[in-house]
This record gives sequence, C-alpha cells and structure tokens, in this order.
Amino acid sequence: MIETPYLLFLGDAPDQLAAKVAQGIKDWRPENAVGQYRMEGCKADLGIADMTLTEAREAGAKTLVIGVANRGGVISQEWKKVLVMALEEGFDLASGLHNLLRDEPDLVAVAEATGRSLHDVRVPEVDYPIANGVKRSGKRVLAVGTDCSVGKMYTALALDNAMRERGMKSTFRATGQTGILITGDGVPLDAVVADFMAGSVEWLTPDNDDDHWDIIEGQGSVFHVSYSGVTMALIHGGQPDALILSHEPTRAHMRGLPDYEVPTLEALRDTALPLARVANPACQVVGISVNTQHMSEDEAAAYLAGVEARMGLPAVDPFRHGAARLADALAAI
Amino acid sequence: MIETPYLLFLGDAPDQLAAKVAQGIKDWRPENAVGQYRMEGCKADLGIADMTLTEAREAGAKTLVIGVANRGGVISQEWKKVLVMALEEGFDLASGLHNLLRDEPDLVAVAEATGRSLHDVRVPEVDYPIANGVKRSGKRVLAVGTDCSVGKMYTALALDNAMRERGMKSTFRATGQTGILITGDGVPLDAVVADFMAGSVEWLTPDNDDDHWDIIEGQGSVFHVSYSGVTMALIHGGQPDALILSHEPTRAHMRGLPDYEVPTLEALRDTALPLARVANPACQVVGISVNTQHMSEDEAAAYLAGVEARMGLPAVDPFRHGAARLADALAAI
Repeated sequence: MIETPYLLFLGDAPDQLAAKVAQGIKDWRPENAVGQYRMEGCKADLGIADMTLTEAREAGAKTLVIGVANRGGVISQEWKKVLVMALEEGFDLASGLHNLLRDEPDLVAVAEATGRSLHDVRVPEVDYPIANGVKRSGKRVLAVGTDCSVGKMYTALALDNAMRERGMKSTFRATGQTGILITGDGVPLDAVVADFMAGSVEWLTPDNDDDHWDIIEGQGSVFHVSYSGVTMALIHGGQPDALILSHEPTRAHMRGLPDYEVPTLEALRDTALPLARVANPACQVVGISVNTQHMSEDEAAAYLAGVEARMGLPAVDPFRHGAARLADALAAI
Repeated sequence: MIETPYLLFLGDAPDQLAAKVAQGIKDWRPENAVGQYRMEGCKADLGIADMTLTEAREAGAKTLVIGVANRGGVISQEWKKVLVMALEEGFDLASGLHNLLRDEPDLVAVAEATGRSLHDVRVPEVDYPIANGVKRSGKRVLAVGTDCSVGKMYTALALDNAMRERGMKSTFRATGQTGILITGDGVPLDAVVADFMAGSVEWLTPDNDDDHWDIIEGQGSVFHVSYSGVTMALIHGGQPDALILSHEPTRAHMRGLPDYEVPTLEALRDTALPLARVANPACQVVGISVNTQHMSEDEAAAYLAGVEARMGLPAVDPFRHGAARLADALAAI
C-alpha cells in the first residue's frame, strides 16, 4: 500500500506522452495529485500546481511518484539528486520503472537512514496464497479483451467513476503497474509466480458487502498466446459475476503476434463465459467496450450500433461516451 | 541441465512412499540410476545396488539426487554430512525439496570451494523469453486433465516409452520438479513468473525434426481454478498438434476444491481443443488416458470400453495397459 496523496515527479520528460503514468493519476484520482515536480527541460505539464518538495510536504503529499518513463532504463544522476532530497524531506518513493529503486544502493541507504519506503510496483510485496476457489460475498466485474491493450484499464476506471456517480459501492482493483500507481495498491499480476496468480486475485478482491462491486482491471486476452495464462488467472481468481467484452476493431492482427488474427466479439464471449462459469456459474456478459480511437465519430457510432444489434448488449466507447450504460447494466444485476 | 547419471540418495526414508522421486527415476530412466545411497534406518529400497560415494563415482555417477522427502522441511545434520562429503567427492547435488540447497550456507561454501553445482529444481535457472507464438517445426503432444493429479506425467512418460519402442523420435519435456529430476532438465513451470510462462514452454519445446514428437508434461487443469493459468500457458506455449485427455473417474470433487465438480471428458474436450487451436489450428484430440487405480480390473475394462464408445477415441490406463494405443494414434497423425 502506497501512502497517498502524491507529488508527481515528471523529471525532464521529453514530451507529454512520457508522463502518461502521472497523467493517469491526475485524470483518474485528482485527489491523489497534490502537485507536480518538474526539472529543467521538462516538456510535460499536467496543468496542476508546480511545487517544491517542501511545498508539497506542507500541502500533505506523502509519496513522490515517478510518473514518467526514463531514458534507456537508467535512473540519471539528475533524477537521483531529487529522489535523495525527497527521501530526506520525508517522502516515500514509488516507481513503475523496469529498473528498480531497490537496486540503487544510494537510494536504499538514504531510505534506511531516513526510515522511508521505496515502492517498486512491478515487484510483488506480498506472499500471495494459492487460490481456494471459495465463493466470496460481494460482486465482481472483469473486462476481458479480444486482444491486449484494447482499453480494459480505461474501461474499468471509467466504470468506477460512473458507478460512484450513481452512488453505487465500487472499488477499482488494479492488476498492473499504472493502475497500482493510480490507486496506491493492487497486484502486479504479470510479475507474480505462476502458482500464486489466481490466489493473488482472490486476495485482491476479498469478501465485501453484498451490494459492493470490485471492478477488476483485466490483463492480456485468452486469445493472446503470450499472456493468456494471466488472463485465465483473472477469470478464475476473480470469479466475476459480470464480464465486459473489450475490443479494438481496427487492429490488423494480435498485438505483437503478426500471424494471429484478432477474434470476434462472439468468439470472445463464447470462450470466456464458459471459463468464467467454472468459478461462478451465475456469471453473465453485461456489455461491450469498444476502443474507437482510430474511427471518426460517425464510424464509431455506426460500429457501436452494429455491435449492439448483433450482440444484444450495450456497446459503448467509454472514452468518447462514458461508461454510464455499462454501470446501468451492472446496476440491473 | 543436471549431469547424469545419478546416485540416488534415500537418506533415512521412513517408508517406500517417501522415496517416490527416486522410484520415479529408477522406473522411468533406469539408465540414470547408477545406485542408491541409504543411511542407517532407511526403510526404502529401490532394488538397485547400494553404493558408497566412492563406488558410485567410480561407476560414473555425476550427481547425487535427493530422491526422498525430508521431515518438517529441514535438511538434517545427518543428511548434511553426506551431502558435504558428496560435494567433496566431486558430485553435484540436485534437489526438489521446498527448502533449498542454496539456502544452506555450509553447502554453498563447500560447493564453491569444490567447484560443484547445487541444483534446486523448484527454482527457474533460466531467463525465459516472452512467448512469440511463432509456429515451430516438429510435433508436440500435451496431456490435459479434467483435474490436477490425474496421471498426466505418468501418461507422458509411458507414451515416451511406447514411442521409443516403435522407433519414433520423441522427447519427454518435464514441466514439474519430479519430471525434471527424472530426465535432468525441464522447466519448473509453477515457479515461473506469470509473464514468462508461455515463453518458457516455447523455450522447452523448440524447433525440431518434422517427425519428432515433444511429449510435454501437463500441469493443473483448465477447470482447476487454482492452477488453470499454468495449464493455459502450456496449451498456448506448447502449441500442441495433439491433446490427450486425462481423467480419474472416482474423484468426488476437484482436488482441494470441495465445492467444484470434476467436469466430464466431453467438457474437457470442448474447452481445451478450441483453446489449443488458437495457437495451432491443426490440433486434434487423439486419445484418452484414464487413471483406474481405484477400480477393479473388470470395472476398469468396462469403464474404458464405455469411454471409447462415447468419445470415439482410444481410451487406456497407461499404468495397467501401457500407452501403445496412444502411440499408435500419434503415429497416425
């Protein structure tokens, strides 16, 4: 669990895209984003207050989050100076970088001396149990994709917002590094040891109020041969009551797999639903989330109408149109 | 890769069952079992030559394999003395124990001083790639089960024997600790990090002669919610040309999951085959392996005949009847 709220470290980001983790935090959990810390030459701007370390501490920030990709996988000396000062000012550090904070001896030494924590969210910090499959109270929804990177995290976060707006009880459950940094906790599922994957998802989505929804961040796809085992662990460990099918209609082939065709939404439904019913016989598919970013407004509207007619389920692009209709579908269960 | 052949260490095994790993090596790779080393009070006997360390070295043994479960997860001082002497005599050590050889400082020190290797087969020793899904040459067969522990490893080893007897080219590919100790190499799949599971199976079963069969050791079950992700990685990483369905008909519920019914062979076929065809559209189900150990000879024969009629596929218990008919089915592909 990472202490919130955050000061968002943008470093010397070469452009806005390099700061997309910080942007995600600011977009989805603005209450976690006290301010931004930009170094000389930084080309990204979240449109929130620039703060010194001292100002951010006074404003209540507990953790400095590295919200920017670094160049060449190296934590530069310029960054290092700021990170050391932040520890000395009383901040914990959190990072989703491939190269780990804990592998930097100078940061480790200062963190020990100051009693602060280094959070590398790519690395599991919990000894997860083996899944026991016991039915849990409360409800769970999982987005499953025809492919990787079709907008499952975005769908889950938009759904969480829409459900809160309705006064429904919901919690976004992060299973990837960006989601974990956005919310401050979760399971870095792709880094969990095979035997404990499903157990880590059970751990992440425990017993809850009967009218509470866990919105579980999806990963991979049952059709993506590189990561399908991770998806399977989400389907069985999450024992979802509801599935949302996620799709990106313009993709020529599976991401990173030029010889693999993207399956249809029907194939996804017919594959994922029976698998989900092994763990939860009451599971149903409640809606469809389409990433229409490569379509015009008219094309998107026509495509969504076609999917809705074909599949008999609400079909939305949560980025363009919000997730209200998906929240309605869950409220009706 | 563990150097063969072995001296099989039975320690102070309290009964024959405690030495089942050693028994598996002796049964399936007798050429790897130069002799056995038994301590005072050992109640297990493999029926092969008792040897001192020196005798075993002279007979060609390269590695001392701990082929026995230890009590309470502790490597006792009595064992330790023998293990240290073995390193000093020039043996490598190999173990599938939960507590690791590498966590014993005295063994590590002696291994370093003598230049010997400590193999803990529960721990991956390779940086596996992420699966790329590219079609590989050669053929592969995978046993998939209605449940865990239904005899998938036994089926694979029996099939390997039957195929060799026919002069077919085949290699048993171990994915669990016992299999790895039996053959000397493999992937400890349940200990691999999620993102690399399918890639480790691709690595284990690389391009090969067009008429060569990799016989991939199965793990878990797509219906077992604790381990289904591991099974999925085998199905997609292994890109099998042939599946064998494995079943234990007398089980009251899924292993360790009292609330989960064991699926039918038909349900297994209808779930696993479409998943396998994502990675290999030519995949087919070629036969059925039934563990009839809890049935009389007559019951077993009647059950197998019934399955064969129902499913239209050869159905055998490889322990009772050998795997010849499964090898025939593969030879016909």
